[in-house]
Amino acid sequence: MALLLRVTTWGLCPWRGYSSKGAQGALSKGFVEALKAVVGPSSVSTAAVIREQHGRDESVHRCQPPDAVVWPQNVYQVCRLAALCYCQGVPIIPFGTGTGLEGGVCAVQGGVCINLTHMDRILELNLEDFSVVVEPGVTRKALNTHLRDSGLWFPVDPGADASLCGMAATGASGTNAVRYGTMRDNVLNLEVVLPNGQLLHTAGPRRHFRSPAPGLGPDVHQHVAWALTCPVSPGSRKSAAGYNLTALFVGSEGTLGLITATTLRLHPAPEATVAATCAFPSVQAAVDSTVHILQAAVPVARIEFLDDVTMDACNRHSKLNCSVAPTLFLEFHGSKQALAEQLQRAEEITRHNGASHFSWAKEPEERSRLWAARHNVWYAVLALRPGCKGYSTDVCVPISRLPEILVQTKEDLKASGLTGAIVGHVGDGNFHCILVVDPEDPEELHRVEAFAQHLGRRALALHGTCTGEHGIGLGKRQLLQEEVGAVGVETMRQLKAMLDPRGLMNPGKVL
Amino acid sequence: MALLLRVTTWGLCPWRGYSSKGAQGALSKGFVEALKAVVGPSSVSTAAVIREQHGRDESVHRCQPPDAVVWPQNVYQVCRLAALCYCQGVPIIPFGTGTGLEGGVCAVQGGVCINLTHMDRILELNLEDFSVVVEPGVTRKALNTHLRDSGLWFPVDPGADASLCGMAATGASGTNAVRYGTMRDNVLNLEVVLPNGQLLHTAGPRRHFRSPAPGLGPDVHQHVAWALTCPVSPGSRKSAAGYNLTALFVGSEGTLGLITATTLRLHPAPEATVAATCAFPSVQAAVDSTVHILQAAVPVARIEFLDDVTMDACNRHSKLNCSVAPTLFLEFHGSKQALAEQLQRAEEITRHNGASHFSWAKEPEERSRLWAARHNVWYAVLALRPGCKGYSTDVCVPISRLPEILVQTKEDLKASGLTGAIVGHVGDGNFHCILVVDPEDPEELHRVEAFAQHLGRRALALHGTCTGEHGIGLGKRQLLQEEVGAVGVETMRQLKAMLDPRGLMNPGKVL
Repeated sequence: MALLLRVTTWGLCPWRGYSSKGAQGALSKGFVEALKAVVGPSSVSTAAVIREQHGRDESVHRCQPPDAVVWPQNVYQVCRLAALCYCQGVPIIPFGTGTGLEGGVCAVQGGVCINLTHMDRILELNLEDFSVVVEPGVTRKALNTHLRDSGLWFPVDPGADASLCGMAATGASGTNAVRYGTMRDNVLNLEVVLPNGQLLHTAGPRRHFRSPAPGLGPDVHQHVAWALTCPVSPGSRKSAAGYNLTALFVGSEGTLGLITATTLRLHPAPEATVAATCAFPSVQAAVDSTVHILQAAVPVARIEFLDDVTMDACNRHSKLNCSVAPTLFLEFHGSKQALAEQLQRAEEITRHNGASHFSWAKEPEERSRLWAARHNVWYAVLALRPGCKGYSTDVCVPISRLPEILVQTKEDLKASGLTGAIVGHVGDGNFHCILVVDPEDPEELHRVEAFAQHLGRRALALHGTCTGEHGIGLGKRQLLQEEVGAVGVETMRQLKAMLDPRGLMNPGKVL
Repeated sequence: MALLLRVTTWGLCPWRGYSSKGAQGALSKGFVEALKAVVGPSSVSTAAVIREQHGRDESVHRCQPPDAVVWPQNVYQVCRLAALCYCQGVPIIPFGTGTGLEGGVCAVQGGVCINLTHMDRILELNLEDFSVVVEPGVTRKALNTHLRDSGLWFPVDPGADASLCGMAATGASGTNAVRYGTMRDNVLNLEVVLPNGQLLHTAGPRRHFRSPAPGLGPDVHQHVAWALTCPVSPGSRKSAAGYNLTALFVGSEGTLGLITATTLRLHPAPEATVAATCAFPSVQAAVDSTVHILQAAVPVARIEFLDDVTMDACNRHSKLNCSVAPTLFLEFHGSKQALAEQLQRAEEITRHNGASHFSWAKEPEERSRLWAARHNVWYAVLALRPGCKGYSTDVCVPISRLPEILVQTKEDLKASGLTGAIVGHVGDGNFHCILVVDPEDPEELHRVEAFAQHLGRRALALHGTCTGEHGIGLGKRQLLQEEVGAVGVETMRQLKAMLDPRGLMNPGKVL
């Protein structure tokens, strides 16, 4: 314990000191052999093209490749890899689908990227208990395909087909959060490999252990509790047992440990679904409608906002004929009878706030057509400047402050000379400004960064957060300090030092 | 920081070394004078009767009075009190309404009880943002009275009229959790005074500080950020900014810091409410009905289970004529039209599972009459043995395991010779066995303890938790170790040592 509590001022990259500088990049040949001994030779790569694929996500952060990529097959191998890196002082970067938006996988200090996608089993499905246990290679779409005829589904939907453990690590949410909550609300238990190779079950393991696997190596392992096939207990729906370790790891962005399984809360699949859209004379009218819908306890499943610029881009890109005006996209889930009432109330409220063009659709194809603009936002905005990349801001404010920040942001956008459009999960007060940027133009990249920082500070001034769902990653560390204050950041630093005393887990992120 | 990370092996009660052994109990006269200098002489008491009132909660844990009780008026005073105790090595026990059920306020090492009920302001109400900021003296009933005509309410309802900050500290829930979640789901931000007197805002403060208050004393305070009138930002509905410090303090039972304000999520007040009850031929039939209601996505607001013994006790106590059979008590919230549909579906499902005597009521008085048995459970069970006290167990299991544990528990109850009845928040898999015990009979108290431990282990074996909502407190520390495992407990110990290096915050609880 003393070891874990001591803050080690570890040298920047000690293992590079004995690098062979050969084909393995900056790692010594012996170290790469040791990795191969754990996962097998074919599950380790030091090829430049592979390392580069793992050094970037979908953001504009520049590629920073790891020194090696490994693909463990099971949690035992992950424990041994972590222990190996821990002993040698080598950084670890967990990797899922690479669909993050804040540079969370960039290997800023090199090290070993642990690609967890080969661990892709659905370990346990409990229909009566509304829970499922999945490994890190299972994506949200794969899970929902598996659940198709079960009557249940997993609603958190960040857009990308991300891995569920990666979504837990990021604290992801998306369009459904207004009704079903974020990952913070839907993770019941996590299996985590701590930086020293110890295995933690945040809400408790199954109470069956077997003795440590033989030949595990260093003594940091003596406390590893080896669990059976499905180590993460499906667990109960609620608990007041001790400190909430699950919540500590949800949103920790790979900086405290590697998530190797997660137990998720499932929800009844909606009996029927209706989609709707309507256009507004102003941003204020769209936001007022949202507040009134929520106050009227209409259990809206999705309520998305697109500004006039976005609607115009969508019209051009998808050959649509929508009003070029602030627009709400709504979705309702429920029984047919309940839906009719929800729809009627929503239409009354939106019309009262000046909405026009209220359209709705029941059947899947019609719904897709109606929501086409929303589905294609990213590509429609990118098409405004072919050859460029997209960068998405991610602030979230109390909903009452949404109109003013949206108006200010549109002015800032104009003043900055940047190309951008606004789309928001308006029921949560969360919105994204999608900026289209030439990644080869440093001056423009600089303007994007300045705009994003300025927007983050605007959100903080309105008592919001600099990130609703994408995380801190590389680019928002200064904003995090401003958001949580000196004591908050110091407490987070202590947490990091406690769980990762050598600073090896995904270094350079969050703090 | 080095100070906070070092685990100090502090002597058991160093401040007792210079005790004057006078009217102030075990505290020195000088120390009591220092407390008075912070809060004023009339807000400090060392009277035996006052100390005894603060040394017990509503459980059967024996009274263990603190050495002094203080009533701070504001957060600045709480910071100064904490700093004073920290420097002198005096334990601190936070005190709200004293309605806890696990001995959380027992001063097992003496020390200073900080009664926070004089801080009772509702600091900020944001109707559009569905949030409110309250001080520790505000109870859930006081808040809902304040909200009466606002169209919003705070639904978490543990039965007792507990303080909302105390409910956050315990991770409380209650009858509404199946629909509205527990405190874990409804706390957005906390203002916490750390053991050394530093002020932490778990989701970030308002970004306005003033300089440290003059005359604050010891240098541990140099980082205290002094916030303005309403220091806890109302905050956004969601965030992915750094580690989730809010969740770390919800359910920490006063062992990591003093909660001096909390921001809560509010919900739209239901347009209409319907209550219903029905009796079942078996426990299995009642639980099956619950699962089917949840699977059918009927948004039931409360679904409570009472066993036959409890129903019999309620009939006798409240002169009712209910079936002496496993019974469900349901409540639905929604529009009139939605309620009609919910009621119809629930009735179909329960009848399909063999329910009889399906009754429902709309108007407040009718509803109260229908739910009379549920409302009076505690007193009805206590009336089975006049002069005795009640003790409530609190396990929670995956709902699929509920029938078997209920059947086993009823057999255990018979075998133990104890008087007890079962009532459960069945939608969460959480149930209480209310045991009636003679507090003067050590042998019977011992049997109660053995029964409760055995039940806790049964729940763990079924992948449940030893506490759904009452917390660990004094009596479940061993069960917590079995529940979360060696690595889990070690991680919790590290968290405790990190935030409370001198072990002064509510010692002897949780760990």
